[in-house]
Amino acid sequence: MSGSLIVVGLGPGAPELITPEVTAALAAATDLVGYAPYVARVDAGRDVRRHASDNREEIDRAAFALKLAAEGRRVVIVSSGDPGVFAMAAALFEAVEAGEPAWRDLDIRVLPGVSAMFAAAARIGAPLGHDFCAINLSDNLKPWETVEKRLRAAAEADFVIALYNPISKARQWQLEAAFKLLRSIHPASVPVIFATAVSAPQEQIDVVPLGEAQPDRANMRTVVMIGSSQTRIIERRDGARFVYTPRSVGVLS
Amino acid sequence: MSGSLIVVGLGPGAPELITPEVTAALAAATDLVGYAPYVARVDAGRDVRRHASDNREEIDRAAFALKLAAEGRRVVIVSSGDPGVFAMAAALFEAVEAGEPAWRDLDIRVLPGVSAMFAAAARIGAPLGHDFCAINLSDNLKPWETVEKRLRAAAEADFVIALYNPISKARQWQLEAAFKLLRSIHPASVPVIFATAVSAPQEQIDVVPLGEAQPDRANMRTVVMIGSSQTRIIERRDGARFVYTPRSVGVLS
Repeated sequence: MSGSLIVVGLGPGAPELITPEVTAALAAATDLVGYAPYVARVDAGRDVRRHASDNREEIDRAAFALKLAAEGRRVVIVSSGDPGVFAMAAALFEAVEAGEPAWRDLDIRVLPGVSAMFAAAARIGAPLGHDFCAINLSDNLKPWETVEKRLRAAAEADFVIALYNPISKARQWQLEAAFKLLRSIHPASVPVIFATAVSAPQEQIDVVPLGEAQPDRANMRTVVMIGSSQTRIIERRDGARFVYTPRSVGVLS
Repeated sequence: MSGSLIVVGLGPGAPELITPEVTAALAAATDLVGYAPYVARVDAGRDVRRHASDNREEIDRAAFALKLAAEGRRVVIVSSGDPGVFAMAAALFEAVEAGEPAWRDLDIRVLPGVSAMFAAAARIGAPLGHDFCAINLSDNLKPWETVEKRLRAAAEADFVIALYNPISKARQWQLEAAFKLLRSIHPASVPVIFATAVSAPQEQIDVVPLGEAQPDRANMRTVVMIGSSQTRIIERRDGARFVYTPRSVGVLS
């Protein structure tokens, strides 16, 4: 029996955002591996084995999945959003490189998905319509001074910025520190979008000026997007708004 | 009759990367608007009206679509990849803001798709597995010095960089200039990925060190990804390679 390991992105939450390619991979799996809420989300056959784990055990989870695949199982690792964006794909290749030499010759594939930030952007307009950066705000795997250096570089070069993992129970002060740093570079009027649980029933999207952005609008399911100096708001009669970043920009000061 | 306007992302090319949400929107459309090759790609009913246009007419195309929606048609604008990433969504909102006041109250929605860069990244491993930037290399709508400032900021802060629109018939020297600038900051060993026509029959993916990266590997269907100083290559026995960027990084110099 020849095993395989596929890392898939389930998208931000709604089933209609799962690609047919991912649906087919899930249907063919013998084993599902992943963070418990994602594994639970999958609609799969009765015979599939579900291996749910805690959020913080990415490398152990990846090594476990590789071991199953080496034994001949058809393993799917489930990730939310796109698996290559602050999710399981990088952890998997770290485990491949550090693990059994035979693992690197396994049939390993990554299937892309709809990322949380693009789903969030689509809901509010086109805030990422021009050059942008994605930064993982967690300082679990990098020093905070590296995060700050990147925030500063991105804002000074007037990129739109998408922040993943803006806050958690164990990381409470970082988002406020990020806003403070960005306020030292950008005007207070720059729009900030808090997009939480996009496409799920709990979806919540708020737009506030950077000068008034407070970290308590974010939770673990929030992507925070900070506009560039060019990002614009279109007001609608019903009180809703579109936020977008035009495709043109001049010389940066 | 109440019209609507939906901007959809068809993904990078393969039908199995189109979300069910987009498929449903296409099936309900009365009119398809977009760049001719994308409009041609859509499998829709016989009665749908197809309005194909040239690549450079985004604003006119968006205004035309808005006019149709205002007349009560169910219009879908088709984009490749994700519509919010260097595609039609930003152009649409520019047209909304500059156009008829009534247009901003139309039923306008954006449906996300699998972006070209995430599809490309998935094919080769997880090169965007850590903080990254996306930059449109075209200087049609921004001065080249703004592009250079962003490239420099991104490389100095050690982001992975994804370049959209790296080259065209009318823009031949910019990609070489970008490589030259990046070589002044990064080691020559940093991996560069040229991902062309991902998921289409013409798919081609090359990995070369930055020191040997030549612009003639790119064409209009290529996304170019330049690794950070941390990006790694895993060699496989069959000669294939995985490229990934680990989740951890230290203090930047």
